[in-house]
Amino acid sequence: MLDRLPIPIVQAPMVGASTFEMALAVSQAGGLGSFGAGAMAPVDIEAEVRRFRAASDAPFGVNLFVLEPANPSQDEVEAAIDRLRPWYERVGAEPPAPPNDFAPDFRAQFAALLRAAPPLASFTFGLIPPDQVNALKAAGTYVVGTATTVAEARAWAEVGADAISAQGAEAGGHRGTFLASADESLIGTFALVGGIRQAIDLPVIAAGGIMDGRGVAAALALGAVAAQMGTAFLLADQSGASATWQKALQAAGDDPTRLTRALTGRYARGVENRFMATMRPVEAQVPAYPVQNRLTQPLRVAAAKAGDPDVLSLWAGQGVKQAGPGDAGDLVKRWWAEAQTVSRALAARTSSE
Amino acid sequence: MLDRLPIPIVQAPMVGASTFEMALAVSQAGGLGSFGAGAMAPVDIEAEVRRFRAASDAPFGVNLFVLEPANPSQDEVEAAIDRLRPWYERVGAEPPAPPNDFAPDFRAQFAALLRAAPPLASFTFGLIPPDQVNALKAAGTYVVGTATTVAEARAWAEVGADAISAQGAEAGGHRGTFLASADESLIGTFALVGGIRQAIDLPVIAAGGIMDGRGVAAALALGAVAAQMGTAFLLADQSGASATWQKALQAAGDDPTRLTRALTGRYARGVENRFMATMRPVEAQVPAYPVQNRLTQPLRVAAAKAGDPDVLSLWAGQGVKQAGPGDAGDLVKRWWAEAQTVSRALAARTSSE
Repeated sequence: MLDRLPIPIVQAPMVGASTFEMALAVSQAGGLGSFGAGAMAPVDIEAEVRRFRAASDAPFGVNLFVLEPANPSQDEVEAAIDRLRPWYERVGAEPPAPPNDFAPDFRAQFAALLRAAPPLASFTFGLIPPDQVNALKAAGTYVVGTATTVAEARAWAEVGADAISAQGAEAGGHRGTFLASADESLIGTFALVGGIRQAIDLPVIAAGGIMDGRGVAAALALGAVAAQMGTAFLLADQSGASATWQKALQAAGDDPTRLTRALTGRYARGVENRFMATMRPVEAQVPAYPVQNRLTQPLRVAAAKAGDPDVLSLWAGQGVKQAGPGDAGDLVKRWWAEAQTVSRALAARTSSE
Repeated sequence: MLDRLPIPIVQAPMVGASTFEMALAVSQAGGLGSFGAGAMAPVDIEAEVRRFRAASDAPFGVNLFVLEPANPSQDEVEAAIDRLRPWYERVGAEPPAPPNDFAPDFRAQFAALLRAAPPLASFTFGLIPPDQVNALKAAGTYVVGTATTVAEARAWAEVGADAISAQGAEAGGHRGTFLASADESLIGTFALVGGIRQAIDLPVIAAGGIMDGRGVAAALALGAVAAQMGTAFLLADQSGASATWQKALQAAGDDPTRLTRALTGRYARGVENRFMATMRPVEAQVPAYPVQNRLTQPLRVAAAKAGDPDVLSLWAGQGVKQAGPGDAGDLVKRWWAEAQTVSRALAARTSSE
């Protein structure tokens, strides 16, 4: 599947930043566009897949968050709301009443995904069981599991995944980690791709720190079947990242990203802002995703409206300073042309000795 | 200098693991051998450089730790010894009396280095001032600064370094970090090489997670002038790593490395053992390098003698499971042959679309 892509570049599914238009542009350029469907209602997943198929015959992917239903105690939710109270005030948002639900139900999302049967489905935050993998395969869907460690790649191989998306420590946004702790699961892309290739015999998509055609060529040299790029698309014409988010990325200094648990209850990488820095001492105490994510939603919505980067999630990978603007399809073609040039130069250089 | 190497592979300087024989084998194979001279007496630095020159005309490098003289309070040293008391007992070593000196004097080491004037000198743990850089250059020595962040690479460019050794978060052994905190300076090799190349106009040596010819090709594709490999040499015939250390690396499970400050007072990456795990809760309190390093020396010597991996420093990078045995010179040639094959295949693949 992935080895038949005209251009072995996968656009990373990014909830809040990837868009229908971005996925379509990337797939039509010859790469693989993706939907970050983790926060989508089941009915919308089916609708988006239909809409894509109506627009293009090209392959594409849909990504889901593997989540158990959240069932926090009322005390935990109230404590979390109290902890956020100064931030609600700061952005002029009403603190929410303890919500009844925190995220779309994964089982319903999965059922919708299975009915929609996109060419590729990828999963993060957890593992799905073999019967779900097999059901997707029977529906003609290629199944990709996200791994941040070699152990997680083995787990995906055991449930029958077709390929592994190796999420290196450089990557922006949520960590897909589901076995060990987040800080024990920060393997750089170089070591992770090599380690997974050594451990299991499945195609590997390299993700994390890949920002241009040089990175694409490097990922393929490492033995990856494709390079997955997310941060590199954040400033694209089709990016769903808010103007405030984009401005903050462009204004960031050297080495600007950090991991935080404070914004959503799951470790994620972004440009550090005041919220992340201030919440750091208490971030271990916030309720797990999706609870904290639901409770900070009013903050992030208000901050985006007000253009306040201090309270926004500014997800980005470690390569963020290398991101540039452009049409997403043109970026894919440009990176691939650069990867071709670099590959030819590399072959010439290594054979001239 | 680096772009004239027959094989663009730099053997990482590794105190305790790289040896004269390893450096010689790597340089004679066409790569660049290195001395980890951070713990060497000045007179030994000059002797080793003379000895190398007597054995080979090939270029080589010498690495120093940039350190201020340690001046801990007696209370701090005694508290550190008390903290280690159960470990001294465990290995049957006498707790040391508070030592008078903790490491070779950097100024004396630097003076010896300048007199020896090796083809290449590299520095880690800190920055040297422009007059020292210029003195080395005037002596014909190529000056390389280690950077774990883009900001550190800029600092080295400002003092006039000839090239940057970009130490990605994957790398084993001590972090070279000298500006921000260790946990804010864990940039993966993909993002770090690209970020430094974007920020400054100096040759970049890529280090961290490079374990074979695929990794070498990937590093060059990213735009590095050479690939630096350390962990990949730990099981080589010429490795100075003890049998216990080597056995522990080979026995390690998936994703086995962690960062620790407990062994030396400076964050370093190794396969986690009992000492690292047990000391984790108090590792922030141990005195900074070289004090803690000096105090754990009797432990590590006794543990190596007793073949006890639980109290040894098992330095290794995240790619450690990909390390294999062999003559260091043969490994260099094999990796380069593989890099050539991979590069040709990549050029063929990318041009066939």
